[in-house]
Amino acid sequence: MIVVMKAGSPEPEIARITEELESRGLSPEKIVGKHKVVLGVVGDTAELDPLQMQEISPWIEQVLRVEQQFKRASREYRHGEASEVVIPTPNGNIIIGEHRPLVVVAGPCSVENEEMIIETARRVKAAGAQFLRGGAYKPRTSPYAFQGHGESALALLAAAREATGLGIITEVMDSPDIDKIAEVADVIQVGARNMQNFSLLKKIGAQDKPVLLKRGMAATIEDWLMAAEYILAAGNPNVILCERGIRTFDRQYARNTLDLSVIPVLRSLTHLPIMIDPSHGTGRSEYVPSMAMAAIAGGTDSLMIEVHPNPAKALSDGPQSLTPDRFDSLMKELSVIGKAVGRWPEPAMATV
Amino acid sequence: MIVVMKAGSPEPEIARITEELESRGLSPEKIVGKHKVVLGVVGDTAELDPLQMQEISPWIEQVLRVEQQFKRASREYRHGEASEVVIPTPNGNIIIGEHRPLVVVAGPCSVENEEMIIETARRVKAAGAQFLRGGAYKPRTSPYAFQGHGESALALLAAAREATGLGIITEVMDSPDIDKIAEVADVIQVGARNMQNFSLLKKIGAQDKPVLLKRGMAATIEDWLMAAEYILAAGNPNVILCERGIRTFDRQYARNTLDLSVIPVLRSLTHLPIMIDPSHGTGRSEYVPSMAMAAIAGGTDSLMIEVHPNPAKALSDGPQSLTPDRFDSLMKELSVIGKAVGRWPEPAMATV
Amino acid sequence: MIVVMKAGSPEPEIARITEELESRGLSPEKIVGKHKVVLGVVGDTAELDPLQMQEISPWIEQVLRVEQQFKRASREYRHGEASEVVIPTPNGNIIIGEHRPLVVVAGPCSVENEEMIIETARRVKAAGAQFLRGGAYKPRTSPYAFQGHGESALALLAAAREATGLGIITEVMDSPDIDKIAEVADVIQVGARNMQNFSLLKKIGAQDKPVLLKRGMAATIEDWLMAAEYILAAGNPNVILCERGIRTFDRQYARNTLDLSVIPVLRSLTHLPIMIDPSHGTGRSEYVPSMAMAAIAGGTDSLMIEVHPNPAKALSDGPQSLTPDRFDSLMKELSVIGKAVGRWPEPAMATV
Amino acid sequence: MIVVMKAGSPEPEIARITEELESRGLSPEKIVGKHKVVLGVVGDTAELDPLQMQEISPWIEQVLRVEQQFKRASREYRHGEASEVVIPTPNGNIIIGEHRPLVVVAGPCSVENEEMIIETARRVKAAGAQFLRGGAYKPRTSPYAFQGHGESALALLAAAREATGLGIITEVMDSPDIDKIAEVADVIQVGARNMQNFSLLKKIGAQDKPVLLKRGMAATIEDWLMAAEYILAAGNPNVILCERGIRTFDRQYARNTLDLSVIPVLRSLTHLPIMIDPSHGTGRSEYVPSMAMAAIAGGTDSLMIEVHPNPAKALSDGPQSLTPDRFDSLMKELSVIGKAVGRWPEPAMATV
Repeated sequence: MIVVMKAGSPEPEIARITEELESRGLSPEKIVGKHKVVLGVVGDTAELDPLQMQEISPWIEQVLRVEQQFKRASREYRHGEASEVVIPTPNGNIIIGEHRPLVVVAGPCSVENEEMIIETARRVKAAGAQFLRGGAYKPRTSPYAFQGHGESALALLAAAREATGLGIITEVMDSPDIDKIAEVADVIQVGARNMQNFSLLKKIGAQDKPVLLKRGMAATIEDWLMAAEYILAAGNPNVILCERGIRTFDRQYARNTLDLSVIPVLRSLTHLPIMIDPSHGTGRSEYVPSMAMAAIAGGTDSLMIEVHPNPAKALSDGPQSLTPDRFDSLMKELSVIGKAVGRWPEPAMATV
Repeated sequence: MIVVMKAGSPEPEIARITEELESRGLSPEKIVGKHKVVLGVVGDTAELDPLQMQEISPWIEQVLRVEQQFKRASREYRHGEASEVVIPTPNGNIIIGEHRPLVVVAGPCSVENEEMIIETARRVKAAGAQFLRGGAYKPRTSPYAFQGHGESALALLAAAREATGLGIITEVMDSPDIDKIAEVADVIQVGARNMQNFSLLKKIGAQDKPVLLKRGMAATIEDWLMAAEYILAAGNPNVILCERGIRTFDRQYARNTLDLSVIPVLRSLTHLPIMIDPSHGTGRSEYVPSMAMAAIAGGTDSLMIEVHPNPAKALSDGPQSLTPDRFDSLMKELSVIGKAVGRWPEPAMATV
Repeated sequence: MIVVMKAGSPEPEIARITEELESRGLSPEKIVGKHKVVLGVVGDTAELDPLQMQEISPWIEQVLRVEQQFKRASREYRHGEASEVVIPTPNGNIIIGEHRPLVVVAGPCSVENEEMIIETARRVKAAGAQFLRGGAYKPRTSPYAFQGHGESALALLAAAREATGLGIITEVMDSPDIDKIAEVADVIQVGARNMQNFSLLKKIGAQDKPVLLKRGMAATIEDWLMAAEYILAAGNPNVILCERGIRTFDRQYARNTLDLSVIPVLRSLTHLPIMIDPSHGTGRSEYVPSMAMAAIAGGTDSLMIEVHPNPAKALSDGPQSLTPDRFDSLMKELSVIGKAVGRWPEPAMATV
Repeated sequence: MIVVMKAGSPEPEIARITEELESRGLSPEKIVGKHKVVLGVVGDTAELDPLQMQEISPWIEQVLRVEQQFKRASREYRHGEASEVVIPTPNGNIIIGEHRPLVVVAGPCSVENEEMIIETARRVKAAGAQFLRGGAYKPRTSPYAFQGHGESALALLAAAREATGLGIITEVMDSPDIDKIAEVADVIQVGARNMQNFSLLKKIGAQDKPVLLKRGMAATIEDWLMAAEYILAAGNPNVILCERGIRTFDRQYARNTLDLSVIPVLRSLTHLPIMIDPSHGTGRSEYVPSMAMAAIAGGTDSLMIEVHPNPAKALSDGPQSLTPDRFDSLMKELSVIGKAVGRWPEPAMATV
């Protein structure tokens, strides 16, 4: 349920209404939009009568039900307004959102050693990326495959952050690791395989760092938004939704089916910002540029692209990684689309 | 197997090689590329030795095996060169291909009456479409649903063609109807549900009109190219491949999953031109613009978009149809992307 | 809508009601159940009031709406009673239905030559099969693969029928072939790839031979029943539904996913009899016995099993074909389950 | 790689070979089969020459490579012999395996209160079940849905165990909970959504209680066996594989697609025992009996069936739960199939 306040509602009145709702056992959350304040209300609202609720205050413009199963994640919960995730990095605040320039995350699948991660960070920064991705803890299908360097890789990510000022995005696989990852990461990633690891979602929702929530391989849009709802309900409003390909009947050429239609679908259902990962989404580096172009034209807010200094020797995901040179030229190609749709960052970017 | 001829190979020598190959029970097909002539050879080539084949003539540069199951449809069969489908229409030849401007097909799901089809044709032409789509024979899930007006609808399509000069694309559902459809249609469509109706594919391959082959709902890329191979093997080289969404586990918001990754995948595998249908691909008109934008940026050669003068009253597919006004504004949006990637038709288009 | 008549309703009254319904533009169909007569009514019934309808005659017990999209195929249409398909063969009438002994169809994927088909027919008959399957027209993914011997194979099937008395089941791929297939076949099969070839369904519904309708690879249960509805609506009530595996994300070991849950699902939704094809359903002969056992225990009415005298040399589907010896031993294994559930044919079967 | 010892190999020689292999950096594991001893060897074996390995001792019969990606889980790793999971319960050891009588697990989705869980335990025991299932920690799609009573539910499970002597199976969702669950559970379940929660798999592999590993909704057979491999590689050999339905394009009637073909597929690939869960597999109680029958005839080693004293009022999964009465009658029906295939427990079971 949302309570839409009239423009110019006085703060003390909003506070009074909040208290009134809390006294009825509800959990109101104040959302300050561009023009209006909205109180999002989650709780046992099924029996409440919106018309009666409206009588709580003459400053209430409207009381509306959220029809979706997901409440805090729904677009209605913010009365139609998009939310933005603001991420402080050494290079300044980076903002991911519907009305913001495209944000690009790049880097290797996993952190292999200091030289490679710092070298990659320098190259992707020079090409225009604002974030470095890199796995310290890696979810691998086989227990005998490289599992990531773990804690020592976190130190290398910290070094790359210091060397370049890039924000860091890295994945958490187990709840006891959250704290040490949060010390280094600017955004904590929940991987596709853990999208419905609800215990992890609750704990990551209880800490402060923004969360990148990858879509599970067989997750419906609703499943995905309900997973985001777990994080939001635990108190963390900064969730970015990342499509990375779903599993379908055809895996012969593209490893997954990148579902770009999530862009308009999510846009209509949720206020949360969107990221597209064409590297995992297709599984082959030669398909990445076309899908990155498509994602921007389709309206994504951000992109995640795997870059490795030597894909042929990568410890993981080599076939889907671009070389730094190819990434560099791709960024120039992307800028053509980005500028055409008015989503390319203006002054500071290397490719301009 | 392909026989690549040296640049400047004399015609009589090419003819001699062709005869030689035929005398060995093979079916050579001469393909004139920009720089070279290639002889595509299908038949019992498994036992042939490429090196020995090369000795047939000093003008042979190289003999290569086509590794794919699809032979004539493979990119190798044309030694890496894209093919183009040239379609004569009253307004002149329209060419669909990788190095050509984007071609737009628009129109209603089904032909309902003369006024609506001619009105729609006028509007989509004014907005910049080169082809009118419209079903005379409709594959419907229910036998009690509107099945299309059949032969009388063909006459209405002919009238719309005459009134506007637009090329006509309409679907064939049964082999005995091919002839009468070919009298009116400039391109004959094989629908998703008939993609593996091999009897129909053989017969449609034996006539001259270009063929639009829609991907089946559960067809792998390989299945799809093998279906194209049926048409090519029957003698018709003019096949356009149209992605229209596949069936996956999530059908709650988008009715199908539009698989835009076919663009780079097909580009690497086949020389045939590509069309994307975001209307069937998503099933909802509000998702169509975003996916049409994405398709162009991703590299499609053509688009098919459903337009109906009054979607709410459409006899079929109303929810996925744009109004003529929305189509008009969409074409302007598309032109921004189309121009950015250098694929927008220059002079004659209304939106310029 | 169905009109349930009271027990003992006089024939003239039923005839009068039928006429009355026809005069209102409806299409009533008389269904004689074990205890009652039901009039199934299809047509523009949405506006009719069941209570008013009941006043047509005091012999009407109840008028009920069919809620499903499929009408004639729905279980409600027969007021909950199962239908049976009676198939005359040289060996007598074979009946497939929920309350009948299990019927087994066996034979090769395709008819290769006279010796193999007659030999196979003899062997599967001796083991207890009542029908011989064998393809004359074969839907093959590749145009270069063996396409079936066509008309000449029909003659061989006729010979096998004469030699053994077994009923013949063979596939139609194109509507112009229906007549010549109907001359030989006791049951005409519509293959998975043509399940939504609606033109073919209409034409096959307009002839008299019973129809085996295979489920499409991506057909939902509802799609499948709607396809059956096409045949029923065209006048042919004798449809058997055959599950043969659906296409899912995992095709590494089993080629398709055999969906045995269709047995209870179809049982609750439709009166039509059920067949399970574990050969196509799994794609590997070593998985067939386990799934055939499961199908019987799960409640199937019939089984289709591929048998080939020499699977390693089969022109098609070798890997999923049993040898006659293995089929023989499988029938003995099946009889254990069949007897346990009271569905094994008593006297005449070789394995008894 | 496996080292097959000759029958009668002396223990000291086997110990010597083990040491020899360890000195080469490999991890040999001694598997005592019915007739032979096999040493399973995991490690960097790619470069080793089996013939040279054989020279280590004249008591070595054969050295074979395991071709599959999964090593310890592969059937080859035990030289073709099935493994059994022995589970001590208050009522004695229960053994799940290919050559053992069927084991039945029954109980509610979640533990709701003491009365219901003890009542249910008594009823399912009386009907012939050997294990009680019941969730303390529940993975729910919505954060607002009942999440299980957690630790207090564990105490109620302990009470039900004491009251009936049944073994307890309950799910772990988060690694920090493993210890307290292991205190109560006789088998610890890893749910479908956590099948690729590799951190959890490693930790659960490092404790002693047997593990029930449910198949993920979009997990291929290979993914699933690789997940089992994580547990085995961490030192716990007691893994039971439970199929509970996969996610496909059709979810209208059955909520998932129960993939019974895993029975023959797993049997050929792995030595691990198999469980089928038709309750989650179909999502509707009316489909459960048919699929339970099919599973036994198809060869499953165990069944998991949801039973709730009042499904209409269940806090979770009501629609797929049987009443105790229905479960009772189902067990009688199952015994018919179980006896026919020689897998029904003989003396002690209530239904005999």
